[in-house]
Amino acid sequence: MLPATPPSRPLAFQTIAVIGKYMAAGIEQSLSDIAAFLLEKGHKVVLEAETARNVDLPGVESMTPQEIGQHADVAIVVGGDGTMLGIARQLAPYQVPLIGINQGRLGFMTDISQDSMIAVLTEMLRGNLESEQRTLLEGTVLRDGQAIFHALAFNDVVVSRGPTTGMAELKVEVDGRFMYNQRSDGLIISTPTGSTAYALSAGGPLLHPSLSGISLVPIAPHALSNRPIVVPDSSNIVIEIMGGRDISVNFDMQSLASLQHHDRIVVRRSAHTITFLHPQGWSYYDTLREKLHWNEYPSVTGKLK
Amino acid sequence: MLPATPPSRPLAFQTIAVIGKYMAAGIEQSLSDIAAFLLEKGHKVVLEAETARNVDLPGVESMTPQEIGQHADVAIVVGGDGTMLGIARQLAPYQVPLIGINQGRLGFMTDISQDSMIAVLTEMLRGNLESEQRTLLEGTVLRDGQAIFHALAFNDVVVSRGPTTGMAELKVEVDGRFMYNQRSDGLIISTPTGSTAYALSAGGPLLHPSLSGISLVPIAPHALSNRPIVVPDSSNIVIEIMGGRDISVNFDMQSLASLQHHDRIVVRRSAHTITFLHPQGWSYYDTLREKLHWNEYPSVTGKLK
Amino acid sequence: MLPATPPSRPLAFQTIAVIGKYMAAGIEQSLSDIAAFLLEKGHKVVLEAETARNVDLPGVESMTPQEIGQHADVAIVVGGDGTMLGIARQLAPYQVPLIGINQGRLGFMTDISQDSMIAVLTEMLRGNLESEQRTLLEGTVLRDGQAIFHALAFNDVVVSRGPTTGMAELKVEVDGRFMYNQRSDGLIISTPTGSTAYALSAGGPLLHPSLSGISLVPIAPHALSNRPIVVPDSSNIVIEIMGGRDISVNFDMQSLASLQHHDRIVVRRSAHTITFLHPQGWSYYDTLREKLHWNEYPSVTGKLK
Amino acid sequence: MLPATPPSRPLAFQTIAVIGKYMAAGIEQSLSDIAAFLLEKGHKVVLEAETARNVDLPGVESMTPQEIGQHADVAIVVGGDGTMLGIARQLAPYQVPLIGINQGRLGFMTDISQDSMIAVLTEMLRGNLESEQRTLLEGTVLRDGQAIFHALAFNDVVVSRGPTTGMAELKVEVDGRFMYNQRSDGLIISTPTGSTAYALSAGGPLLHPSLSGISLVPIAPHALSNRPIVVPDSSNIVIEIMGGRDISVNFDMQSLASLQHHDRIVVRRSAHTITFLHPQGWSYYDTLREKLHWNEYPSVTGKLK
Repeated sequence: MLPATPPSRPLAFQTIAVIGKYMAAGIEQSLSDIAAFLLEKGHKVVLEAETARNVDLPGVESMTPQEIGQHADVAIVVGGDGTMLGIARQLAPYQVPLIGINQGRLGFMTDISQDSMIAVLTEMLRGNLESEQRTLLEGTVLRDGQAIFHALAFNDVVVSRGPTTGMAELKVEVDGRFMYNQRSDGLIISTPTGSTAYALSAGGPLLHPSLSGISLVPIAPHALSNRPIVVPDSSNIVIEIMGGRDISVNFDMQSLASLQHHDRIVVRRSAHTITFLHPQGWSYYDTLREKLHWNEYPSVTGKLK
Repeated sequence: MLPATPPSRPLAFQTIAVIGKYMAAGIEQSLSDIAAFLLEKGHKVVLEAETARNVDLPGVESMTPQEIGQHADVAIVVGGDGTMLGIARQLAPYQVPLIGINQGRLGFMTDISQDSMIAVLTEMLRGNLESEQRTLLEGTVLRDGQAIFHALAFNDVVVSRGPTTGMAELKVEVDGRFMYNQRSDGLIISTPTGSTAYALSAGGPLLHPSLSGISLVPIAPHALSNRPIVVPDSSNIVIEIMGGRDISVNFDMQSLASLQHHDRIVVRRSAHTITFLHPQGWSYYDTLREKLHWNEYPSVTGKLK
Repeated sequence: MLPATPPSRPLAFQTIAVIGKYMAAGIEQSLSDIAAFLLEKGHKVVLEAETARNVDLPGVESMTPQEIGQHADVAIVVGGDGTMLGIARQLAPYQVPLIGINQGRLGFMTDISQDSMIAVLTEMLRGNLESEQRTLLEGTVLRDGQAIFHALAFNDVVVSRGPTTGMAELKVEVDGRFMYNQRSDGLIISTPTGSTAYALSAGGPLLHPSLSGISLVPIAPHALSNRPIVVPDSSNIVIEIMGGRDISVNFDMQSLASLQHHDRIVVRRSAHTITFLHPQGWSYYDTLREKLHWNEYPSVTGKLK
Repeated sequence: MLPATPPSRPLAFQTIAVIGKYMAAGIEQSLSDIAAFLLEKGHKVVLEAETARNVDLPGVESMTPQEIGQHADVAIVVGGDGTMLGIARQLAPYQVPLIGINQGRLGFMTDISQDSMIAVLTEMLRGNLESEQRTLLEGTVLRDGQAIFHALAFNDVVVSRGPTTGMAELKVEVDGRFMYNQRSDGLIISTPTGSTAYALSAGGPLLHPSLSGISLVPIAPHALSNRPIVVPDSSNIVIEIMGGRDISVNFDMQSLASLQHHDRIVVRRSAHTITFLHPQGWSYYDTLREKLHWNEYPSVTGKLK
């Protein structure tokens, strides 16, 4: 006789990692509440190592992000989008899904409010949730053909001019095709996730997270027609430094400064993806609408100005 | 014994339709040159019926676009992007690939110059070519749940306010999810092909033709944060008229005026696609660069400003 | 011995007109409260005639805007910016200063909240106030050299294409100098007051009310380099209709439709100005900041992102 | 009997300074041609000292910019806008009018082509010319209330974030009124002259040179509503560094790096102005149109798209 198949969902979240924003006020209480709730539900709880240095949760084991990647079934991140950005990039190779709880202000990636977190987590751990995949970029800096830097970026790869110098001059090629020589303050290569961050400030479009696209958004380009362009995320993007001084490249927040002329930055979609778990009924547009103060209600009379 | 299989490419273009810009100066000579060249090469040549009313090519049969759709293996369009736009929409259901020859000024879709056309066509008819697929939109206007208008759009579907009235108020839903109530002069739903047309003027991003995306570009929106957004082209987009007077909707250039409050416009990717054939080595970026006056060459010294 | 000079300010506001938003909910109570307060202070109060048709203030005389212009020392407008826009244009020839009280939501021109209005008016009637001048535009439409329309505009003069047609083509001359032939959805000629209205939606800059400038803001221009331009408000601006169909011109909300090719619209600063009175300490930037949701506070730590 | 008044114009240009772009190819021939022409016409010619180090004009005296300022009646600048920018700032205190001759490509400030220069100068020296005034900015950096840097700017004063850091946070006050705390890559304070330079790339409006305005153009601001704003050029603008690292300020191209939190940059219109002399019939719009590739001609048919 075959044994009964155990219910799959509850088991899927056997080990749950909890990660808090670095040294944020009030974070200890939130993490403690979440841990107590999870332990009571029978989950194994682990605390991320750096979080554990600032927050004391008695009886809860701490793990490095790498260990979390290997052992946890899900990670709950408490903080802002910056906290999520940092940990998501570290966990990307391990496919651990992420749940984001914001401290105060709704985030694009930390979409569950602290007030409702226990009720929401209760439902989500029962399997009442929505799963969503996000892409990352990986970039390599080549000097004289040798890779001198490699990093992942969840938001964007940004090439920027030096602070007190003139414009950067960047030669851009996509899939081996020459696009242009751009003179500007710099160029943002953005994922859909990054389209609500720096790329938006620089005039880039919003990209729905499930769009298979990467946007190239010039920063203050010399030519007015150097408009943002969205290419398929299967594209291989190469940026070569042609002019300008003190040019640097940032992968989210990791930087390589003092690029040299003819250094090449190769950017493509990473083989890794990030999985976000949201409460059932979650909609990306609800978050956009609230974050960007879009109108929710029609005008009362329907007779506008 | 079986006969040897004939080489496949030449046969693939047995019947070639030729289509000219309506009443354009000098078009007769171009069409005549092309027809003579094709006939000499042994192709069957047919002339589009409306073109045939203005251009006399002795001994060349004329066909309606529908007949061309059923019988031609490829259509050569001589004119500007507007000419191509019109014929491409009519041929979309038939999968006839299109070659575009411009009269004077490089077009986004009519990328072969008249000067080089015979040499270029010679190579392309030998199979030395690049093939590219473009998506179209199809839209339906629903009033009280009944479809009152249906059309294809190769560039865009545009909902606009009336001329001497205030703003339009549009409720937008994507895949059943509420996006926003937008107050604006209107909203452009654009294919990648349309991203270099009206959508670009209204501040939308460039979309590479192979991106599986549709952009929603508001025209002069009341809220500064109503930025262009790109969604996957699998999206089902519904725009409901909530306020404003004399609102109209345009599918490329076909219009339906006097929309009423609560009329709904449903837009999605069409099942049809359009195939463009380009000379070998063609690059979309070359066209963009020339049309948008992007820099081709780095600054001489590499030391800018 | 000379008699003491009486305090000049109180006398300056002997007759006060009160004007309310057309048929707005709750407007009667506000107007009644203001009238009672003013009468008790010894001012003569008059009610604008159209307001008087919907609001009954026993014992208060009603006057047309023209009569208000001739007899009132100040006008108090209760409503939104639209209400203020309409009455300001009518009172412009008479130099009656205006005080704006908003119903609910802060307006750019109706900057006093209903909650604080009695306290604020008390101070202002004592002379504790700031006075500010705003410019208007006047426009004339010429057909075959004859003026066929003339109007004032406090926000903007807008030339727009027809609803289901292609672009408008407009030839613009400033002070007899040819500027350009612009292809677009239209062109907004805006005062500083109008710079926070339609011109802002179309991508125009904010203009401080005391800037002696007029902005020309193209709507969705065909050429990406057709950027907004600000000219001195001494400029004589002529727009000639060169192409397009069903073109119309709007002066704030008064419209002239069906312009013909070669009709010319001449726009210049009006000889009239509008005077706004604000509470002491009023700052235009405070209004901008609140209306545009600008940051008031620095980030807590000073260490961003 | 009174002596006849001598014709005033020719005398006004007794001493003419000639200034060339630093080490530009072909510059020697141009300068030599101009000097020969002027000497023949009876003018005294002096060569700017740095130019004289690279260009040998036998028998022509050299002078420092300061000496030119004291002795020359007009200065002829041969080169690009960058050359003009540098010399104009140095001559600003002396009111020497400037004539700009471009080497190859039309400049905004160097509007006379080399091909036509002798014919054009002949006319201009006869008094057939247009004179135009341009404003400059002067800026002072205050640290703990002490001025640590002071400079003039003809184009713009730019406050920028450091290269590999997050946003700058800038508190802006105008005429003692708080405007906002802005988070961005930086802020450009631009003259009308600078409105076609960096400010345009960052999304700022064009300002006609005779507009008495200064524009504040944020670079990639965090808040989408932080739009460019134009204030009267009588404004006193104070920018205080509130957050961010490695912030620098540039006055045209002179830089002060490593600003500290609470450093204040005070910017106002300089008491100096710059006078440009142009050929008779010169129009700013002609230059704009050519530089920005604006349409000169209406579409042939007047029937657009």
